[in-house]
Amino acid sequence: MPSDRVLIIGGGPSGIEAARGLADLGTPVTIVETRERLGGMPIAASYAALTPNFDDAEEAIDRMIAPLLDNRLVDIRVKSTVTASKGGAGDFQVTVSQDGKQDMVSAGAIIVATGFQHFDPGRETQMYGYYEFDDVITLPDCEKMLKEHKFVRPSNGQVPERVCFIQCVGSRDRQIGNEFCSKVCCGIASKEAIEIRRLLPNCKVSIFYIDMRMYGYWENAIYWPAQEKYNVSYIRGIVSEVLKKGDKLIIRGEDTTLGRPMEVPMDVVILSVGMEPSKGTREMAKLLGVKQNKYGYIETVGAPLATVMTSVEGIFAAGSCNGPADLEDSISAGAAAAMRAAVLVRKKSTAKTAGAEARA
Amino acid sequence: MPSDRVLIIGGGPSGIEAARGLADLGTPVTIVETRERLGGMPIAASYAALTPNFDDAEEAIDRMIAPLLDNRLVDIRVKSTVTASKGGAGDFQVTVSQDGKQDMVSAGAIIVATGFQHFDPGRETQMYGYYEFDDVITLPDCEKMLKEHKFVRPSNGQVPERVCFIQCVGSRDRQIGNEFCSKVCCGIASKEAIEIRRLLPNCKVSIFYIDMRMYGYWENAIYWPAQEKYNVSYIRGIVSEVLKKGDKLIIRGEDTTLGRPMEVPMDVVILSVGMEPSKGTREMAKLLGVKQNKYGYIETVGAPLATVMTSVEGIFAAGSCNGPADLEDSISAGAAAAMRAAVLVRKKSTAKTAGAEARA
Repeated sequence: MPSDRVLIIGGGPSGIEAARGLADLGTPVTIVETRERLGGMPIAASYAALTPNFDDAEEAIDRMIAPLLDNRLVDIRVKSTVTASKGGAGDFQVTVSQDGKQDMVSAGAIIVATGFQHFDPGRETQMYGYYEFDDVITLPDCEKMLKEHKFVRPSNGQVPERVCFIQCVGSRDRQIGNEFCSKVCCGIASKEAIEIRRLLPNCKVSIFYIDMRMYGYWENAIYWPAQEKYNVSYIRGIVSEVLKKGDKLIIRGEDTTLGRPMEVPMDVVILSVGMEPSKGTREMAKLLGVKQNKYGYIETVGAPLATVMTSVEGIFAAGSCNGPADLEDSISAGAAAAMRAAVLVRKKSTAKTAGAEARA
Repeated sequence: MPSDRVLIIGGGPSGIEAARGLADLGTPVTIVETRERLGGMPIAASYAALTPNFDDAEEAIDRMIAPLLDNRLVDIRVKSTVTASKGGAGDFQVTVSQDGKQDMVSAGAIIVATGFQHFDPGRETQMYGYYEFDDVITLPDCEKMLKEHKFVRPSNGQVPERVCFIQCVGSRDRQIGNEFCSKVCCGIASKEAIEIRRLLPNCKVSIFYIDMRMYGYWENAIYWPAQEKYNVSYIRGIVSEVLKKGDKLIIRGEDTTLGRPMEVPMDVVILSVGMEPSKGTREMAKLLGVKQNKYGYIETVGAPLATVMTSVEGIFAAGSCNGPADLEDSISAGAAAAMRAAVLVRKKSTAKTAGAEARA
């Protein structure tokens, strides 16, 4: 029996946008989210401000969620997971589990919006000592502090004098199998650098990078102000090792502009960890039988001209479950998936109705 | 009288995707395109292959257009322009002119998808001599040759031995007022470099760049193969001048990796010209009264979380009329605009119907 409902797996920016679009079009949706609330990574990882415009992340995401609450077309299932799926386009039967209880949801189409996870720097082949040294942190660790309007050395709670970011941790790295560029880390590091400088005007902040990838407006929105208004130092160099000496960290590497080795003391080192497919993305791809690429992301079929189609009819994928994406990418793709899913459930219901009439 | 029709201005990838989505949802559309046929810049500028996957551009775009032809919900007006607009959300009255004849189209919503134009290297503040030297060409000039499966020196028709690309021509350049990064030129130059190497295995190809911006999968799809399979040389350096010496070009500048001046002979120099808002984008923004940013692109209101809203209710904007965008960005945004427009025309018609019923 065809269903005109769309099941959305994942309640981050992409899934929220898809749900909002579908409900606005009059299509009932069920959103399944494993976490306690909607919002995805910006909420789960306590992002402070959005890139590039410094809007408060929680407020901004909550504004996106608002139209979904008390909406009769939107069925939100938090702390829930999809544990089985059968059927096909127009008529999926999906098992949603919550607290050990299982419920069957009928859906004409499925949108996978299960997102990414931050690269675990324990897998890094360089020697950055994330798990050894308290003052080596990651971009999301830094966000958490910034959200509380503070930035201190985790080891002793003191205000740091020298801080640096190391770019491309877990990205553009063949040794660990992540050849792709994670797209957003240059922008996010630069945004965080500005925020640190705003909080601590006496703290020196440097960014060690291979290529500074600030595409489109990020260049003028963040990169120029970071350099000129906030005096962030951009150093084209590769850091190969972080050591501890007394209560300082020492970064060791090569300044490729000056072409010489460097050894610089730091109070806090921030690893710009890239994106990897989330556990949910890997699990759902397998459960639903959609093709993944070699990194584990869901493969879009017909890219670059078809941006949300998967290898299975009736299943669409949007946002960072398809690969590195910024918020705008994720949201546009969420809306695009909503449109495709809405069309599909209508076509399938019309075909069914026409069939029933013909038989009558 | 509210209309459930959506008027799409611009028949490039973004407009095509929007039209396809709306028609699939049962919403009638009119697409207004100034050129002789749909397809936008990939067709108008004779792109050879799409980035990053090397699909034939014309075939791929034609596949996108196919569902619009002979579709009773899609009214295509080529060689036409919008010359006036009045009314507001739900009830726009738009004048479409063709061959001096004017026609009035009623539309509930408008999607602007008027795209970009390539930067004119005559405006460049460096001295690259585009208009002086035949063998200095641009990325789109190169595409035209590649589409004909050839690559020669325009000055004499001979096969070149040394070719280079100069990145960031008209982008990341404050002197000319384009501080933004055009996002796609690093990828397109690398793709063209591969195509030249495929055609001319004995031709040496170099790319002079400031930062090599290959985001997401472009890194592994183009950048690594360009270097390793096709031996393209990436040189971090700034070329400040192109001169002519005998029948050769000489590029003069600084190799920033080696930190020394350079002077290298070349047979063909390709300027990686960036994106600027098209004439149509500037004109339509003015005519419709939607806010533009300082570069002349249409401003999206509420970005990064709202990707296609303009400053005027009922008017949406998608693709490179909003700023530098690749094909995937443009297509997802086209679909997102379609969704928003479909929702708007439905709400407005429902409100009208409800009003009429209440009055009855």
